[in-house]
Amino acid sequence: MSYDKYEDNVTGNPSAERLARVRQAMAAQGLDGFVVPRADEHLGEYVPPAAERLAWLTGFTGSAGVAVVLAERAAVFTDGRYTLQLAAQADATLFEACHLMEQPPPAWLSAHAAAGARIGYDPWLISQDGLKRFCDAGLEMVRADPNPVDAAWADRPPAPAGLAVPHPLAYAGRASAEKRADVAASLRADGQDVAVITDPASLAWLLNLRGSDVDHTPFALGFALLRSNGTAVLFMEPEKLPPETLDWLGPDVAVMGRAMLPGALAQLSGQRVRVDAAGSPVWFAQRLEEAGAVVLGGADPCQLPKACKNAAEQAGARAAHARDAAAVCRFLHWLDGADRPALTELSAARRLLAFRQAAPDFRGESFPAISGAGEHGAVIHYRVTAETDRPLRPNEAYLIDSGAQYPDGTTDVTRTVWTGPDTPPAELCDRFTRVLKGHIALATALFPEGVAGPHLDAFARRALWQAGLDYDHGTGHGVGSYLSVHEGPASLSRAGRMVPLAPGMILSDEPGYYLPGAYGIRLENLLLVRTADRPAAQKPFLEFETLTLAPFDRRLIDRALLDEAERRWIDAYHARVLAEVGPALDGPARDWLAAACAPLG
Amino acid sequence: MSYDKYEDNVTGNPSAERLARVRQAMAAQGLDGFVVPRADEHLGEYVPPAAERLAWLTGFTGSAGVAVVLAERAAVFTDGRYTLQLAAQADATLFEACHLMEQPPPAWLSAHAAAGARIGYDPWLISQDGLKRFCDAGLEMVRADPNPVDAAWADRPPAPAGLAVPHPLAYAGRASAEKRADVAASLRADGQDVAVITDPASLAWLLNLRGSDVDHTPFALGFALLRSNGTAVLFMEPEKLPPETLDWLGPDVAVMGRAMLPGALAQLSGQRVRVDAAGSPVWFAQRLEEAGAVVLGGADPCQLPKACKNAAEQAGARAAHARDAAAVCRFLHWLDGADRPALTELSAARRLLAFRQAAPDFRGESFPAISGAGEHGAVIHYRVTAETDRPLRPNEAYLIDSGAQYPDGTTDVTRTVWTGPDTPPAELCDRFTRVLKGHIALATALFPEGVAGPHLDAFARRALWQAGLDYDHGTGHGVGSYLSVHEGPASLSRAGRMVPLAPGMILSDEPGYYLPGAYGIRLENLLLVRTADRPAAQKPFLEFETLTLAPFDRRLIDRALLDEAERRWIDAYHARVLAEVGPALDGPARDWLAAACAPLG
Repeated sequence: MSYDKYEDNVTGNPSAERLARVRQAMAAQGLDGFVVPRADEHLGEYVPPAAERLAWLTGFTGSAGVAVVLAERAAVFTDGRYTLQLAAQADATLFEACHLMEQPPPAWLSAHAAAGARIGYDPWLISQDGLKRFCDAGLEMVRADPNPVDAAWADRPPAPAGLAVPHPLAYAGRASAEKRADVAASLRADGQDVAVITDPASLAWLLNLRGSDVDHTPFALGFALLRSNGTAVLFMEPEKLPPETLDWLGPDVAVMGRAMLPGALAQLSGQRVRVDAAGSPVWFAQRLEEAGAVVLGGADPCQLPKACKNAAEQAGARAAHARDAAAVCRFLHWLDGADRPALTELSAARRLLAFRQAAPDFRGESFPAISGAGEHGAVIHYRVTAETDRPLRPNEAYLIDSGAQYPDGTTDVTRTVWTGPDTPPAELCDRFTRVLKGHIALATALFPEGVAGPHLDAFARRALWQAGLDYDHGTGHGVGSYLSVHEGPASLSRAGRMVPLAPGMILSDEPGYYLPGAYGIRLENLLLVRTADRPAAQKPFLEFETLTLAPFDRRLIDRALLDEAERRWIDAYHARVLAEVGPALDGPARDWLAAACAPLG
Repeated sequence: MSYDKYEDNVTGNPSAERLARVRQAMAAQGLDGFVVPRADEHLGEYVPPAAERLAWLTGFTGSAGVAVVLAERAAVFTDGRYTLQLAAQADATLFEACHLMEQPPPAWLSAHAAAGARIGYDPWLISQDGLKRFCDAGLEMVRADPNPVDAAWADRPPAPAGLAVPHPLAYAGRASAEKRADVAASLRADGQDVAVITDPASLAWLLNLRGSDVDHTPFALGFALLRSNGTAVLFMEPEKLPPETLDWLGPDVAVMGRAMLPGALAQLSGQRVRVDAAGSPVWFAQRLEEAGAVVLGGADPCQLPKACKNAAEQAGARAAHARDAAAVCRFLHWLDGADRPALTELSAARRLLAFRQAAPDFRGESFPAISGAGEHGAVIHYRVTAETDRPLRPNEAYLIDSGAQYPDGTTDVTRTVWTGPDTPPAELCDRFTRVLKGHIALATALFPEGVAGPHLDAFARRALWQAGLDYDHGTGHGVGSYLSVHEGPASLSRAGRMVPLAPGMILSDEPGYYLPGAYGIRLENLLLVRTADRPAAQKPFLEFETLTLAPFDRRLIDRALLDEAERRWIDAYHARVLAEVGPALDGPARDWLAAACAPLG
């Protein structure tokens, strides 16, 4: 899955009437402006319908954006991925469409708000760092209470109330008490008494819980305080916590309703409290400072240990990928068959889902599949709907990017196939092969400890760059263990954080090439970082183990562009796919796979 | 030239007596501690003898380091490059040897200073960001006046007083008035009234001046204020400014002695003043704040335009490299000759210098040559001295890293050659060829605008990494135009800043491999960033033009490790060396070059 393709289910168009009501609510609080980020109280990528304020107000449903409302004008900001979508969804007579990086909201406000204007913000929906960018621009930022959008949003959906359930040790690999003891030790080493945990994925990892509050990512929304003695307080509504979960949490994890959070923070006077300035709502730092606590910066302390999967999680990932691979290979066989019915993007995606639903322990898609035929494949964040659906036609490229959740692991795989029956055009094969060369260059990289994803991203681009080509998305993102398909802190992207890669991290390797109006190519496997066994090496080296198992469409490979090592890699990978997935398939599918995985020759 | 090899001429051992006198001077000011960075008032890499306080106090002459003195204990901090040198030079009974990154001075002070200790610093020798790191550690930092080291250093050398002379337009390519107008426009765009310039290289670029205050880098030490109307004030002692220089500066550049600086800052009350928080002494921000100015962060505004050489500077670089190449090739021929006398590292370096001194317009070395035979080649920052000098023996690798200053350009080139007469061992050839493959991978990179050096560094390492090998220094640094051989803001190094590469930048490409106790390999050319002429490209791409011209020792190339494109690159490069340098050489040297540059076959 490429970056930020998740889109919510909110529909509806921007409405002058909603905007007017928000402005009334602003005025009632004496606010001259208000900032509406696409965010919930956890500042994550996946938000429940109750938090889709930006979509409610503007109609824009992209996963990255913010609106700014003044009395006389308003604007919506997003990045280059969503420029077209923003233009299509938001009413340009109500909202100027702006680029999030080229004219950030603080700069726009500085230019358009009157001097001394009071700009409101919801402290639950912006981080310390995010708020600082507004203050640094000289704006007077004022806490809004209540949020003017919420005041104007009559039929706002209720907060989700999915159950939080135990994530068994067989999958988690490590007891919560041990994880808490490790993280607590890191807090003590940093001289901290308490850490605030606001990321539901961190909460899920730390307490070995899973949930169902948002689509596609099995976490339960909540907050926690972790003390440096290893005990914790979980803030989650009681109705989400069945008795077996309370038992599972044990005596060292106290449970309180969300309403108890302010009181709990008020008791931290004099304590040294770690709050993630980039990832947690500024509400926490403000409340803690008001309570007389010492607020200390520092990333969410669960982030890095969560990313480094333990042995059980690694074994789970391999097992989940094997089951997923059988479904994907069955789909690819079926897709390639002469006897399949006429297909559309939607029906193809549904068929893939059906194959996956037959896999043991399938728990759902890890994101809405991207199923793009021909020119739709060039839309990096394409999401097929009833309106955009179109047939898969003969002799075109078809891109399918999809993934699944299993209790032992999360998958994410992209293949681009040729629908046939004719031979694909040479240009398409050239581009496909360059993307494949980039994929291989990254998958085969050996690199010393200390290297971060941004250092390796160019390996996946070089074959394209040498032809004057590129793709406008990151090369890879972290993937959780039965958690979010987009997980930090590491990535394989140029714009990513400088977090050294470490054994146990799972990252996607998904270079692509997109010719607008014509076709898109993306080739994605998940990779597991592991220690390289190189006794002769000068220092510790790391390498990748490929988790994803599915053939690359040999019809699209231009053998002349491959060097000997690349040919050997493809043949060895295909042999492994056949050996590991073949036994799970029945006759015709196995025969198809054997042909798809034969040496390139 | 690899990173930070510059070392000063200060000798002498650390002395208990000097330390005692510094402690007395601290006590006289009521200070419990004092921080002694290796820095002058410009916070640059190259400092005059008067600023070598760290060396005077501790004996340690590395180019990166800091000492911290408490009443009862003291420590010297440096990075991994200088660990051995620190151990050899500083008296361990007086100074603990610490690692600058693993236990930074603020952490050491937090651990060892008494609670509430008053730690002195010299505001001229530390940046805002640098001071902040001490304050963030909870230390009470106190301005020392005078600097206790200066108070204790009886025979401190005088400040340098080299003349500042015009840098003619034929070399500079652009008049100072035009440069000042451009930078002033960028200040206005940022809403700033004045910029403080403290980097002597920026001063030299902005005012088209050169000087001779420090070795190897032809700048004159001074400060400037640039106003948003394009006028400037230069703070430099009058005796450094002959009449022709004053004429050259013209009416829009006022000149004042350094003593006028506090008064000039005091007049900036209410002005918005840009000060580089990372690169300028904190003294400026403190004085400006005391004067009621609004201090705004932002990098030195000359840094980026200085790095992007204009057409005249690019042409100058090519011309300077051609003259330098003739000297280097004459040296390599002479070195390879059967009739040369027995050599040592020192005499070889002197001979190279003699060849360069015969080159038109040679103005000096751009850094002290690194001349390392056999095991000395493995010492990345080796500097040959009378004590370490050793003969070049038969059948070993010899590494020579050197550069020159010419009025039209600065050079920096490293070659590693085999002394013969036998065939070199296979392992050495393998390592040499992997380094060369890395060099080529970077030199031939095509990349889109927006890519920064840290994204490309791995290209130069991949061939080594794949064998479990690496080198512990950056791949390349920026190079000035008749200025510093180490120039920001861009680099080709993993740890470098994320500054997008831009046309006109000159950067070194110098991967290496070092086997301690045995040999060192480094292969360095300078590269010029230019726009790639790719009409079919999706977006603007950049590429490198190689400036340096000298053959790579073919005896050390393992042809079997090269792919076809690499072989073609070497043959084409060698053909170019012969075509461009050959005509400048006489008979035997030209014949030697022809053989050295023949196709690999």
